[in-house]
Amino acid sequence: MSKKQMKLGLSMRYMGYHVGSWRHPDVPADGASLFQSFLEVAQTAERAKFDMLFLADGIGVRLDDKPKGSMCRSRHNVELEPLTLLSALAPLTRNIGLVATASTTYNEPYHIARKYGSLDQISGGRAAWNVVTSWSDQEAWNFSMSKQLDYDTRYERAHEFVEVVTGLWDSWDEDAFLLDKESGVFYDEKKMHVLDHVGKHFSVRGPLSVRRSPQGRPILVQAGVSEPGQQIAAEYCDIVFMAKNDLKSAQDYYSSVKDRLEHFGRKKSDLLMMLGLTPIVGRTREEAQEKYEQLEALIDPIVGLSMLYRSFGDLSHLPMDGPVPKPDLDKVGLKSSAQMYYDLAQKQGLTIRQLYKKIGMAQEHKTVVGTAADVVDEMESWFEQGAADGFNITPSLLPHGINDFVELVLPKLRRRGRFRDEYEGRTLRENLGLPVPASRYATTASADRRLAS
Amino acid sequence: MSKKQMKLGLSMRYMGYHVGSWRHPDVPADGASLFQSFLEVAQTAERAKFDMLFLADGIGVRLDDKPKGSMCRSRHNVELEPLTLLSALAPLTRNIGLVATASTTYNEPYHIARKYGSLDQISGGRAAWNVVTSWSDQEAWNFSMSKQLDYDTRYERAHEFVEVVTGLWDSWDEDAFLLDKESGVFYDEKKMHVLDHVGKHFSVRGPLSVRRSPQGRPILVQAGVSEPGQQIAAEYCDIVFMAKNDLKSAQDYYSSVKDRLEHFGRKKSDLLMMLGLTPIVGRTREEAQEKYEQLEALIDPIVGLSMLYRSFGDLSHLPMDGPVPKPDLDKVGLKSSAQMYYDLAQKQGLTIRQLYKKIGMAQEHKTVVGTAADVVDEMESWFEQGAADGFNITPSLLPHGINDFVELVLPKLRRRGRFRDEYEGRTLRENLGLPVPASRYATTASADRRLAS
Repeated sequence: MSKKQMKLGLSMRYMGYHVGSWRHPDVPADGASLFQSFLEVAQTAERAKFDMLFLADGIGVRLDDKPKGSMCRSRHNVELEPLTLLSALAPLTRNIGLVATASTTYNEPYHIARKYGSLDQISGGRAAWNVVTSWSDQEAWNFSMSKQLDYDTRYERAHEFVEVVTGLWDSWDEDAFLLDKESGVFYDEKKMHVLDHVGKHFSVRGPLSVRRSPQGRPILVQAGVSEPGQQIAAEYCDIVFMAKNDLKSAQDYYSSVKDRLEHFGRKKSDLLMMLGLTPIVGRTREEAQEKYEQLEALIDPIVGLSMLYRSFGDLSHLPMDGPVPKPDLDKVGLKSSAQMYYDLAQKQGLTIRQLYKKIGMAQEHKTVVGTAADVVDEMESWFEQGAADGFNITPSLLPHGINDFVELVLPKLRRRGRFRDEYEGRTLRENLGLPVPASRYATTASADRRLAS
Repeated sequence: MSKKQMKLGLSMRYMGYHVGSWRHPDVPADGASLFQSFLEVAQTAERAKFDMLFLADGIGVRLDDKPKGSMCRSRHNVELEPLTLLSALAPLTRNIGLVATASTTYNEPYHIARKYGSLDQISGGRAAWNVVTSWSDQEAWNFSMSKQLDYDTRYERAHEFVEVVTGLWDSWDEDAFLLDKESGVFYDEKKMHVLDHVGKHFSVRGPLSVRRSPQGRPILVQAGVSEPGQQIAAEYCDIVFMAKNDLKSAQDYYSSVKDRLEHFGRKKSDLLMMLGLTPIVGRTREEAQEKYEQLEALIDPIVGLSMLYRSFGDLSHLPMDGPVPKPDLDKVGLKSSAQMYYDLAQKQGLTIRQLYKKIGMAQEHKTVVGTAADVVDEMESWFEQGAADGFNITPSLLPHGINDFVELVLPKLRRRGRFRDEYEGRTLRENLGLPVPASRYATTASADRRLAS
């Protein structure tokens, strides 16, 4: 019997998750603004048969110059926008999925349904939406708001937003368009559905001006660890991105999400849990360690402290080689990161300097430093122990990180039967092995026909 | 001395402006949803050295089934969304401009500045935004509004929207990014500008998370004939799209817009007036007339009446071969079209049937039926008499219409020295021969340097 295989995604934002990646000699310093950089990375990932490309997002330039001098040293300033970038990559790729992040707090559901629907048409069924609620006042200030919506309202709005978007995606049955040149009838009125949504946050009539997705509907992704985030994932999503550093908490989270699926009439296999993973690979462990140290040296201390700022406030008055203080969770922007960073520091006994170096390497993602065999061992171990269905590779540097992974790690993963040699299907949903959700307007009879076919 | 040359654009929406284009044997009936259809058209236009591709837009599916049975016979239902489509075309083209429509009524300026800024980076300076205010309640219903904003508010909002977007596009000086790997300094703080806009409709802090446009800023297009529309055009825009059927009214409008430029410190040559033109070309006049009649036959009377509905209300109880009644301008959706259609009917003594056939051919755009010489004569005549700086070709059918135009009309236009053999520049702005607007933060000294270079 063939072994169960892993799914693999590649995170491309800023051409590498290392905070100083742009300073590395092999990285184009302005790569985040260059289409050509992303194209090369995307084509490498597709040749390697990755399931998907992923772009995280935030909408704005953060102007916290804390500590002073850190802002102009950060590369988090300019970049290409995810939907335009993935649309441009669509016709130059054939099989790989295209996952773009968009916020439910600063968008309108009709636009999101339409743009992702359109990308899905253009790409032949490879579009995915990573649903986020955003988390900072700095974004609110770009959208005529004095501060962000409170937490509960953000998630309540997100839930309704996803309900509307998925509803709009059901506007047209697959066979709605008769296109009968002779009689002049373009579509069958019985196969067009008017949403007429009226809710607390949105009133949206529909129908959507994009035809039904080649994959039933675009893939939905969620990354929030909060209770309401998990609920949205269980009810609607196909994929959850997770950032976990220890096996036990990954297993707990994995089960927590999967256990919720049954309530919505879904099977555990209907949703894939993808763990963020940053491999620093060498031909020997020594070479990997050298690479790691070279990367550490690229982290300017002031930039390191600025990364801790949003979780801990200003730590520049404390000894860098002293302990990490407990964050004030009521005051910080992104609670979940603050808690995770603090737990990490406690567990591993990290100093402030050690913590920012760790985060600077790959943000909150699990890092493995070692040979290809070390990396594959670790991946297989987490995969087998119910902590992940696959991995979202978050390389420190691009294109370096993906080249290394493809050259060194993938052959071993394949040799162990854990990753595909060829794409199985045409759409992202087919390649992920996920079921096509029935239209909310499908009758039982037609749903049965679909299942039988 | 070489003759002054025309600019040429190609409108691609729905694969042809003829209301029944999809019924024509040569047209892919579902072409508006097929990326490949647009790609072929775009590449033909680029080989022919067209200045730009244009996509009009509306956000929703209109559900007026008036007269009954017309709705399911209309092709205005599903299509690809302009920004995703043009982004996908960007890497498969090299020189041609990419003009996408977006509404100021149902968008946020930060998103628009960012997405068009990103498309501009991806395309190497070929992005353009056609600024519209939208005009129907049917769109409002998709955006949690019970009816559209009133006319004055729409234009007031549009004006402020454009002010914010152009401000955001000045967020970074061209040379802001030092990218100094050694010192770790990414950008020069003095060359980043925080907009801090606080106005009646928007509060937007900025800066934009996209670097400065390769063409200074994306090209701005306006098509509104109203007083406030002309003001926005004169203050901010590079191009005006116009729909006029008689020379005199085109000349008046041309002067009206151009005369406003001086007030904003701009020259008449700083803005280009582009006339919508639908050529029905044959090798002989008879062949052209035959094509025209073949096209007329594709217009289902019920679809014809539905096109008049939004200007005149339901005319199905009136004799089709009788006169066109005066529209009630206070009640109709799009006042300017209603007035234009009525004037056209009056001037040419058209019956209801004749009017819908005329509109069905190319909406409100000027139509020329004849040989290539006839078309070129007409174009040259309007161009020389101060009615247009160029033409936005609105073909009845695609790809047929552009193939015909390129094969038959363009060689004659070139022989008369009226159209380019090769692109002059790299960006859309360079090819249009338009000046780069100075950043609002430019000092006089640096502005002088720019002009001198």
